[in-house]
Amino acid sequence: MNDQYGREPNFERAVPPGDNMERSVCSECGFVDYQNPKIVVGSVTTWNDKILLCRRSIEPRSGFWTLPAGYLELHETPEVGAKREAQEEACASIEIDRVLAIYSIPRISQVQIIYRATLKQDEIAAGPESQEVKLFPWNEIPWTDLAFPSVDWALRHYREVINAEQFSPFSNPQEGL
Amino acid sequence: MNDQYGREPNFERAVPPGDNMERSVCSECGFVDYQNPKIVVGSVTTWNDKILLCRRSIEPRSGFWTLPAGYLELHETPEVGAKREAQEEACASIEIDRVLAIYSIPRISQVQIIYRATLKQDEIAAGPESQEVKLFPWNEIPWTDLAFPSVDWALRHYREVINAEQFSPFSNPQEGL
Repeated sequence: MNDQYGREPNFERAVPPGDNMERSVCSECGFVDYQNPKIVVGSVTTWNDKILLCRRSIEPRSGFWTLPAGYLELHETPEVGAKREAQEEACASIEIDRVLAIYSIPRISQVQIIYRATLKQDEIAAGPESQEVKLFPWNEIPWTDLAFPSVDWALRHYREVINAEQFSPFSNPQEGL
Repeated sequence: MNDQYGREPNFERAVPPGDNMERSVCSECGFVDYQNPKIVVGSVTTWNDKILLCRRSIEPRSGFWTLPAGYLELHETPEVGAKREAQEEACASIEIDRVLAIYSIPRISQVQIIYRATLKQDEIAAGPESQEVKLFPWNEIPWTDLAFPSVDWALRHYREVINAEQFSPFSNPQEGL
């Protein structure tokens, strides 16, 4: 929590006026640090049945393969955020089809909205957070080198509805809860 | 932003180390206030084709009708959060069916995940944030007294898929973007 100047906030737990839960309140400056789960947006993006994956160049899980995904920023819609992440991580211009899944990782207070998407053109390149980007046919997906469990979930869920037009979004598989 | 003791943080805009965007950094205590969109979870909950609405007792829009919905809390899954909100606002025990819609209000950095749900039993009562709770048949919904545009969207989207098992979640109607 320390910043580059070595300062740090001094949080105490207190219930702010009008609230019904304890929050972190800085005893130095009085700031109430309302914390809520964060949204990750990403996509299973394809080009002619091949799936776009990015090999991470940053921690956590540097060197492992992931979907283009990241934190939604203020004033961004989830669709715009998912497109931005594909652009940033794979220099990829994508078209969103529909919601594939909503996963939640309550331990780290994260909700992931993953879309089914297609590349607009066959041009991809590693962005600053990727060592390498690649289009994988299904039978070459590097299953043992995936970065996170939810990457595995999203790929398998994508496969289940590969020919479906209308479907309800998936949520965590049972073993992942 | 002032707290009950009259203190206030003194935020400056700065790019924290390892980041690529300006964030708010308190010049008093050094705290980096990472802000991301917040998730609202809620439900269109029914009992025998009647729809549960809550008349708000708090601002904004006190006195107007809304769906049971509110901010997702840390370490909560969206489904659990939607159930908690129905319990808090309408003393209602609900069963989640599936995702009805994902709306986004980028102006206020809010993403709403709205479920289709049913009451487990015909027992509802106003919680502390509701003046009144009621089950409305479709033709008695108080359209001109709804609290927020997304309540209107969710009710109409619910109606569109009333007999559908599988459907993709709705997003904002075009005029709402």
